[in-house]
Amino acid sequence: MLVVIDGLGGIPHPETGRTELETADTPNLDKLAARGICGLTDPVSPGITPGSSPGHLALFGYNPVTFNIGRGILAAVGIGFDLQPGDVAARGNFCTVDRAGLVTDRRAGRISTDKSAALCRLLDGQVVDDTTILASPVREHRLVVIFRGDGLLPEVSDSDPQQAGVAPRTINAMRPEAEKTASIANKFIAMAKGTLAEHHPANMVLLRGFSRQPHFPTMGEIYKLRPAAVASYPMYRGLAKLVGMEVLETGTTVKDELATLRQHYSSYDFFFLHVKGADAAGEDGDFDRKVRVIEEIDEALDELISMEPDVIVVTGDHSTPALLKGHSWHPLPILLCSKWCRPDKVNEFSESSCLGGGLGRLPATQVMPLAMANALKLAKFGA
Amino acid sequence: MLVVIDGLGGIPHPETGRTELETADTPNLDKLAARGICGLTDPVSPGITPGSSPGHLALFGYNPVTFNIGRGILAAVGIGFDLQPGDVAARGNFCTVDRAGLVTDRRAGRISTDKSAALCRLLDGQVVDDTTILASPVREHRLVVIFRGDGLLPEVSDSDPQQAGVAPRTINAMRPEAEKTASIANKFIAMAKGTLAEHHPANMVLLRGFSRQPHFPTMGEIYKLRPAAVASYPMYRGLAKLVGMEVLETGTTVKDELATLRQHYSSYDFFFLHVKGADAAGEDGDFDRKVRVIEEIDEALDELISMEPDVIVVTGDHSTPALLKGHSWHPLPILLCSKWCRPDKVNEFSESSCLGGGLGRLPATQVMPLAMANALKLAKFGA
Repeated sequence: MLVVIDGLGGIPHPETGRTELETADTPNLDKLAARGICGLTDPVSPGITPGSSPGHLALFGYNPVTFNIGRGILAAVGIGFDLQPGDVAARGNFCTVDRAGLVTDRRAGRISTDKSAALCRLLDGQVVDDTTILASPVREHRLVVIFRGDGLLPEVSDSDPQQAGVAPRTINAMRPEAEKTASIANKFIAMAKGTLAEHHPANMVLLRGFSRQPHFPTMGEIYKLRPAAVASYPMYRGLAKLVGMEVLETGTTVKDELATLRQHYSSYDFFFLHVKGADAAGEDGDFDRKVRVIEEIDEALDELISMEPDVIVVTGDHSTPALLKGHSWHPLPILLCSKWCRPDKVNEFSESSCLGGGLGRLPATQVMPLAMANALKLAKFGA
Repeated sequence: MLVVIDGLGGIPHPETGRTELETADTPNLDKLAARGICGLTDPVSPGITPGSSPGHLALFGYNPVTFNIGRGILAAVGIGFDLQPGDVAARGNFCTVDRAGLVTDRRAGRISTDKSAALCRLLDGQVVDDTTILASPVREHRLVVIFRGDGLLPEVSDSDPQQAGVAPRTINAMRPEAEKTASIANKFIAMAKGTLAEHHPANMVLLRGFSRQPHFPTMGEIYKLRPAAVASYPMYRGLAKLVGMEVLETGTTVKDELATLRQHYSSYDFFFLHVKGADAAGEDGDFDRKVRVIEEIDEALDELISMEPDVIVVTGDHSTPALLKGHSWHPLPILLCSKWCRPDKVNEFSESSCLGGGLGRLPATQVMPLAMANALKLAKFGA
């Protein structure tokens, strides 16, 4: 049972010297910490602030530097787009161009998500040669464009010039086999320009980060597990799918997620449970709300503990200190509780107490092997 | 602000059970440790005793195993020789040969540095074909020989047979393109033999470790910083130059160095401050002097703290325990102090207290990324 509290880690409030987790009243987490073994994890490497994707991949046991997900695919995953094998995805911006075709605003005045959705409907489903183009809104001026057809390759350059005052760039193939993709992308952009002409300020589209769905070995293959994901946000559901988890339907609250877990408990032998609220509160710089969210999660863990999983791991994918209003590089507290762990003296789940824990400080990629060992699922290495 | 106290780490005095740093009264370092986050660094790898060069390269963020500096170049850097691109450098010994040309003493009776300097003046500036040879004394019988000309390559073998009773070896090219260098080196040695004939016991010269100035990516390129070095010893000035730092003119004391720092404080956004005395005391096996040197450094840090840098890192390049009278493999205490670090409970800067610090035990190559993160200078990895 891998419980990921998104954005869990923090830094101390200057008035109290305590982080969000240290401020929160967390009897269940503390009980698990006392029964288990604790430590601190680095998702990527000390000093490196991870996005949610590398933070999660590391916890699933995939080196996030090696197992890279292209930006276009990640954007598609982030909105829960149902990617098919061979799809090439690009991130896009609606932008403003002047009569001479020069970009005057890369973000089209940050048009609303609703407006963006309406414009995407105009572009969605267009066909260029044998390729269908699918366009979906992300947020404000941002969209995802999927190219679905035969023989498409992601090795093409961006049209986004990354600055105003110049024309969008022509998309070029970065290897000969990608000529078709470049040609289709350029034709699509020309069509889009026509379609959007009357929709100033969003009268053009810029594309970047062309990529294809990566083929990662699945968690089922690697660990010989039947893994399931309980997560309400599209991004985490998408990531879980990428690594081969069954993604279960669930609701939006922690309680919904725990009900889903209970319902499917006997059908899988690995669960990834993702809880989001702490990260959002941290991003908003709301220290007190992050404390409350952690307390709510702690309360809901009663239910999880009562299911008596063989191994419980609780940690985060990255820190999101309210004082920094964003992700940070600080290592994450982790607890691992199983009948076979070697418990340490830590009896409180917090950044400072985990520092003295028996797991020490470990790369997040080592969490899955440890969890598997504690489930007595790993064979001896060598004789 | 990266403060490197050369040879900082120690091992406990058998009578007190305290290291040099633990014996020293260091209120400023302790204050920084209390405000910051502490740990222990390994310059190369546990158990490996680093030279000054790998110890520093690691702190600058260069893996010292990958980023290797040839011995000839290192010797040239060590004496502050002003290398030019294309120079090939070799380490040399004045030695004694008998009438049959066999080496009888590889060190020519360890002639004095003064004598060595006088002999170098005889060899310095000789020209072979289109190549000028520059010879500079190092210490006692050791010298550095620089070959300056077109098309020189370092891939040639040593003339130094590393034992007495045999003749110096002919220098051979280890790839065809290095034939010219081998030929010039052999001609130079033949000339030197003539020049030195009357200077028994230093009647011959042995060369080894031919190498060329490495082209490392600069710290400016890697970190997008404008870095400056404040160091009085040639070796550290040379290393700083190799990684692209501006090397500032300064005096010989810690106070001189801090005055230089103050003077240039607003012109750079990264400073490497090197203080030497502790290492020299350790090498001399003088425990008490090393304690006093550390106390002097601590006192001088007042000035540095008053400049309020965003990030202060204090550590060493390697340990030099007085009881071992030399460099050692013991990890180095480190403190990092910034507004955004997650402080731990360590309130004393020492080997034993840093052991419980929040940085844990980390490779020295991770120090720069951490410092950059704490200066909020790194972008997020992935999304």
